[in-house]
Amino acid sequence: MKYQYSTKVPVSNTDPVGDLLRAAANPDIISFAGGLPAPELFPVEQVQEAANQVFQEKGMTALQYGSSKGTPELIKVVADRLAIDGIQADTEHIMISTGSQQVIDLTGKLFLNEGDTVIVEKPTYLCALDVFKSYGANLVSVEMDEDGMKMDQLEKALTDHPETKLLYTIPSFQNPTGRTMSLERRKKLALLAAEYDFIVLEDNPYGAVRFEGTPLPAIKSFDQTGHVIYTSTFSKILAPGLRLGWVVAPKELIEKYMVMKQSADLHSDVLSQYIVAKFFENNDIESHVAKITALYKERKDLMVDAIVKYFPKTVTYSRPEGGMFIWIEVPGITDTQKLSDYCIKNDVAFVPGEPFYCDEIVPGTFRLNYSNMSPEQIDIGMKRLGEAIEKILTEG
Amino acid sequence: MKYQYSTKVPVSNTDPVGDLLRAAANPDIISFAGGLPAPELFPVEQVQEAANQVFQEKGMTALQYGSSKGTPELIKVVADRLAIDGIQADTEHIMISTGSQQVIDLTGKLFLNEGDTVIVEKPTYLCALDVFKSYGANLVSVEMDEDGMKMDQLEKALTDHPETKLLYTIPSFQNPTGRTMSLERRKKLALLAAEYDFIVLEDNPYGAVRFEGTPLPAIKSFDQTGHVIYTSTFSKILAPGLRLGWVVAPKELIEKYMVMKQSADLHSDVLSQYIVAKFFENNDIESHVAKITALYKERKDLMVDAIVKYFPKTVTYSRPEGGMFIWIEVPGITDTQKLSDYCIKNDVAFVPGEPFYCDEIVPGTFRLNYSNMSPEQIDIGMKRLGEAIEKILTEG
Repeated sequence: MKYQYSTKVPVSNTDPVGDLLRAAANPDIISFAGGLPAPELFPVEQVQEAANQVFQEKGMTALQYGSSKGTPELIKVVADRLAIDGIQADTEHIMISTGSQQVIDLTGKLFLNEGDTVIVEKPTYLCALDVFKSYGANLVSVEMDEDGMKMDQLEKALTDHPETKLLYTIPSFQNPTGRTMSLERRKKLALLAAEYDFIVLEDNPYGAVRFEGTPLPAIKSFDQTGHVIYTSTFSKILAPGLRLGWVVAPKELIEKYMVMKQSADLHSDVLSQYIVAKFFENNDIESHVAKITALYKERKDLMVDAIVKYFPKTVTYSRPEGGMFIWIEVPGITDTQKLSDYCIKNDVAFVPGEPFYCDEIVPGTFRLNYSNMSPEQIDIGMKRLGEAIEKILTEG
Repeated sequence: MKYQYSTKVPVSNTDPVGDLLRAAANPDIISFAGGLPAPELFPVEQVQEAANQVFQEKGMTALQYGSSKGTPELIKVVADRLAIDGIQADTEHIMISTGSQQVIDLTGKLFLNEGDTVIVEKPTYLCALDVFKSYGANLVSVEMDEDGMKMDQLEKALTDHPETKLLYTIPSFQNPTGRTMSLERRKKLALLAAEYDFIVLEDNPYGAVRFEGTPLPAIKSFDQTGHVIYTSTFSKILAPGLRLGWVVAPKELIEKYMVMKQSADLHSDVLSQYIVAKFFENNDIESHVAKITALYKERKDLMVDAIVKYFPKTVTYSRPEGGMFIWIEVPGITDTQKLSDYCIKNDVAFVPGEPFYCDEIVPGTFRLNYSNMSPEQIDIGMKRLGEAIEKILTEG
């Protein structure tokens, strides 16, 4: 039969990034395409120990229905962590979510009518773009430099679109660029949100994974007016398979999020919530995160060294101080997909820039992930990639 | 600040059912209000054993990101179970979801534009009504009898609303009524869906928990045209805290559901998916379900006996052959909320009928849950409830 979908459902089922990731899953391919944490650092034994304690202490409760807000134990873990980002909030300002992806989706559902303007970084996280498109948003992108979204460009966008409803930003070690918004711009963004009366959704999955430079307070920490909503996740500091994140917002909004979440999935996995809370009770999370940052710094340094060693001198690249990604721009490459196809044939993969842009695409850009490959794989893969760039540049 | 929500967000934060359930959580209150399985039957030790095997055999994979479709192991468990409902489908027709609630939500997102007509049973599951309202649906309810939705009334509704996009039904041991759609009506509904070209969302969380009568094939088993989407869950046969359900649909639709799910929460909890699959590998699910049905039958029989013993003779009640609910109608009660308030003060709770209706409300109706209270609690609670009904009827 011919199905009559909602007008907001994409007509095409094509999923070039999905296809790419499936191709790159071939073990012969060295893949810088995914966005996966290093699994060898997952604290499997400690999570198992936490799970066994949960089964013994409250097995029946962990398997029963729970609350949309989340378990009190995990909400307390989150509340205690917010100080790291300079955020003052108590438990009534927190809801547990099924990953921070759910917070992006529920935020769209909560605020967006068809045609509402949403400002995003250029480029930005592609699954956030998908969410905002699914609510019929009018997407407007603002250019970045190494200090994040440019505030003069943002003011121009706000002047052009004074009706802007929402701004989405990943201020620390952004996906896909690895860039971090400066302290000054964080303060400025909080002020602009109040002045132009729009909501900022501050998505901070990577902030805790900082291996260089000085930690910066969250944009939320400068929010005096309730315009900033903050979300983060356990995916990058513990394990993404458990699908647990959180949202921090004024109490009025948390109540609305709970209503939305009840419709979406009733509540997040209770067993996993108890396991994570117990893991935090048993272990020093900071020493665990220190292992992650040490490994990621090593891999980032290797990748930057390889860029210098194997890539043409005209290539520009971002300098991440944390997180999982480096953003590359190769002047002279007009068809990044051609480069990607050639690379896949030569057993190396990356994600071309196109899906991270919502309007004008900067050609010759792509994202490299360094967290998920070994030092040897990074060196060999970057050599292959450098050779591919030279070849495509030469062939034109 | 004054937040500008999407027009589809309920203006009011009032949640009478939530308030009731919170009040009923007081341990002094005997609560027939919730919809919780009996936790004493959760196979905690077997789930723990399965978890330990998962950590040992594939701990890193269980903690890593997964696929929107679900783990192959759990999809196979689902595929093998579909024969119970007479459904022929293979793994490409299945997606794992974060509970069947997520399937209801994604189905709304996939098909509904504002103003689209959705037909529901009168009364029906209140969180499904919330979902359809959140997509701006025009809700039309069709009356039921002890054999489920009345097909002549449905045909009338379809004649009045030939543009109907979606029909939502819980055919077995329905929430809130406990009623089951007859075999004849199941066949008829599949034919009407093809004739009037609307989608049937068949929600079957309770079907496996049958303690009397003859198992019936799913509506989906009579679908020759791809008009029926089927969803179910592990919540009632294993544990709701793990938040795992599934959807069965034509391949084209499963691909769309995966796109929607990626935006909603990327994928469901991977650890829990592996645990449930391992539980099914280790244990005979049918003997576990047999324990559940034996207990629920005992409690249902006790509750029916108590209705006969303690309630006025004018009261009518449904005769569930499975599931967790009995539906009561007390002629002469016009203000069910008054009865509920009085009951809470007298330490017994139920859910008044109102939130289960999307249009005209039948006064004097309410839902009783029998799965979550002990035999002693059922007897004492029903006695209190009978006395309360008598008092409110006398006082008028």
